[in-house]
Amino acid sequence: MRPSARFTELVGISHPIVQAPMVGIRAALATAVSGAGGLGSLGCAALTPEQLRAEVGIIRAAGDRPFNLNFFCHVPQPADTERDCGWVGQLAPYYDELGVDPKVPISMATREPFGASICDVVVELRPRVVSFHFGLPDEPLLARVRQAGCLVFASATTVREARWLEQRGVDAVIAQGYEAGGHRSMFLTENLASQVGTLALVPQVVDAVSVPVIAAGGIADARGVAAAMALGAAAVQVGTAYLLCPEAGIPALHLAALRTATDEDTAVTNVFTGRPARGIRNRAMRELGPISATAPAFPTAAMALQPLRAVSEQRGSSDFSPLWSGQGVGLAQPIPAAELTRQLANAAAHVE
Amino acid sequence: MRPSARFTELVGISHPIVQAPMVGIRAALATAVSGAGGLGSLGCAALTPEQLRAEVGIIRAAGDRPFNLNFFCHVPQPADTERDCGWVGQLAPYYDELGVDPKVPISMATREPFGASICDVVVELRPRVVSFHFGLPDEPLLARVRQAGCLVFASATTVREARWLEQRGVDAVIAQGYEAGGHRSMFLTENLASQVGTLALVPQVVDAVSVPVIAAGGIADARGVAAAMALGAAAVQVGTAYLLCPEAGIPALHLAALRTATDEDTAVTNVFTGRPARGIRNRAMRELGPISATAPAFPTAAMALQPLRAVSEQRGSSDFSPLWSGQGVGLAQPIPAAELTRQLANAAAHVE
Repeated sequence: MRPSARFTELVGISHPIVQAPMVGIRAALATAVSGAGGLGSLGCAALTPEQLRAEVGIIRAAGDRPFNLNFFCHVPQPADTERDCGWVGQLAPYYDELGVDPKVPISMATREPFGASICDVVVELRPRVVSFHFGLPDEPLLARVRQAGCLVFASATTVREARWLEQRGVDAVIAQGYEAGGHRSMFLTENLASQVGTLALVPQVVDAVSVPVIAAGGIADARGVAAAMALGAAAVQVGTAYLLCPEAGIPALHLAALRTATDEDTAVTNVFTGRPARGIRNRAMRELGPISATAPAFPTAAMALQPLRAVSEQRGSSDFSPLWSGQGVGLAQPIPAAELTRQLANAAAHVE
Repeated sequence: MRPSARFTELVGISHPIVQAPMVGIRAALATAVSGAGGLGSLGCAALTPEQLRAEVGIIRAAGDRPFNLNFFCHVPQPADTERDCGWVGQLAPYYDELGVDPKVPISMATREPFGASICDVVVELRPRVVSFHFGLPDEPLLARVRQAGCLVFASATTVREARWLEQRGVDAVIAQGYEAGGHRSMFLTENLASQVGTLALVPQVVDAVSVPVIAAGGIADARGVAAAMALGAAAVQVGTAYLLCPEAGIPALHLAALRTATDEDTAVTNVFTGRPARGIRNRAMRELGPISATAPAFPTAAMALQPLRAVSEQRGSSDFSPLWSGQGVGLAQPIPAAELTRQLANAAAHVE
């Protein structure tokens, strides 16, 4: 059986097209993609149980299609007040410049790792697919997800990570190439210099594991899909191109940045959250990074930046906003998500 | 006409397969690749006029096939004694450890940019293709190459560089993705963080220029060729995979490193030459870089490392040797160059 047929049969979808889960993007996008026969995804890392139930309710109200709930599995780091203070100190000139009072308490959604309480909700909701970023949760939690009948996917940035995931029983490996936007899933390495481009990573992962491999990173149009299939991928995961779809409903500043960015305008940065993630270079990345040795551990780095971001955005500036984007941004078109899914699906079908 | 047919007709070869030029690899490899219907290449940056004539004589003695001579076009930097001394100071502990006398004069092949005297030799030899790395030579030299009837290719690492090259009349652009081994051609940017993976770069370059685009970086087997063609490339350029062919005749230490390296074992470093280049991580890269702020400008950084390299290699160690490799290294097979060329050519033909 062809890899893509094996994958679509496993998941119960029509096309080997996965919409990348992205924190902050709500159910409308996943609904449109699943409705078009792909696999819609919801980035759940910042959702409360109530929000998660509500979003899944929206997806299910549109039809009984498979969808994917994605969670972060980072290992929480112990508090490091000295480091936090150093970071706040580095940001002090920006607080001054923007007239932000550093003493006002900061309120923002947290990024909790997948834990028992959210696992309860997942078991209750029973999505077709649960995917993980930054590794996998502890085995008892993973067992509960499997026992609920969910398929488990997880992201690998190297062959070594792919093998590790397969040994722990994942049903598919997402091979996340260097081009990918958003957080890099790297969990067995902290060495950014070793991160592998999609075209080199996918066939090496395909050779290393026997589960289906989903190619991710830099795939933003039909040509990327065809290329990924030629590399041996069973499916593709597409993020940035879906961000331009109206159903994504992203902030105007992010959309404007995506629509004008070129291939060389992104970089991997840790200044927004403390973990390496690819976005369009802006003032915060240029002046604080793109990689900062002083940024606190994930997700603490985001806290102190939050007020700068809020004030800047009110003034129409994305100087301190994370503008997540992959390197394929110059290929993305602002079309409806169902139409994009069909275009990508046609390319996958054409190859075979 | 299909892009690959346009390319092979332009060059006068059978297959859209270009062997990447690599400094230190002599005529036997180019001869084998051109003999198999691809485009063999000679990395000429370290050859004297006499050596260049001799190598071309070997290629021509094997048959009248098109081949490619490659040259560097870096802008020589003014001497910076302070920086050189700082670098030598940083290397001093290694000189001590290996018992190397820092006062013994260093003799090694230079890396001269393409200039008038070597241009004379090129005009005399009239290869079918002349390709350039790090930009292009000054217009009068370029005009002489063109007037001699040579096609001109050059490498771009971003869409902006590709447009710049097309505006100056190159006959084909080599889109060099982040995965590529050896020196990155970057010449309009020094920002390594912006370098683009092959899968994202190639279609954006194809959209931006009207000349044929040769995909390079991470392509090491039939799947990579098929993927590059799906991205719109007219041809592929393959380096690392050819290094494993017996005709490449690389040092045993380099070959051993290539045969055991995995996808995550390479990084881009400037410690060996002063310019960013991808190789397998070894002691010099780990301890001095991979990116060093103190390494002298290209090609001076290589001088002070040379005695450490020589002594280490005599002792069977590649601690200080540049082990150039792309990220597709795990895909490469030690097979004859003609056989590799045929495998890659079959993949290109199969896609179309």
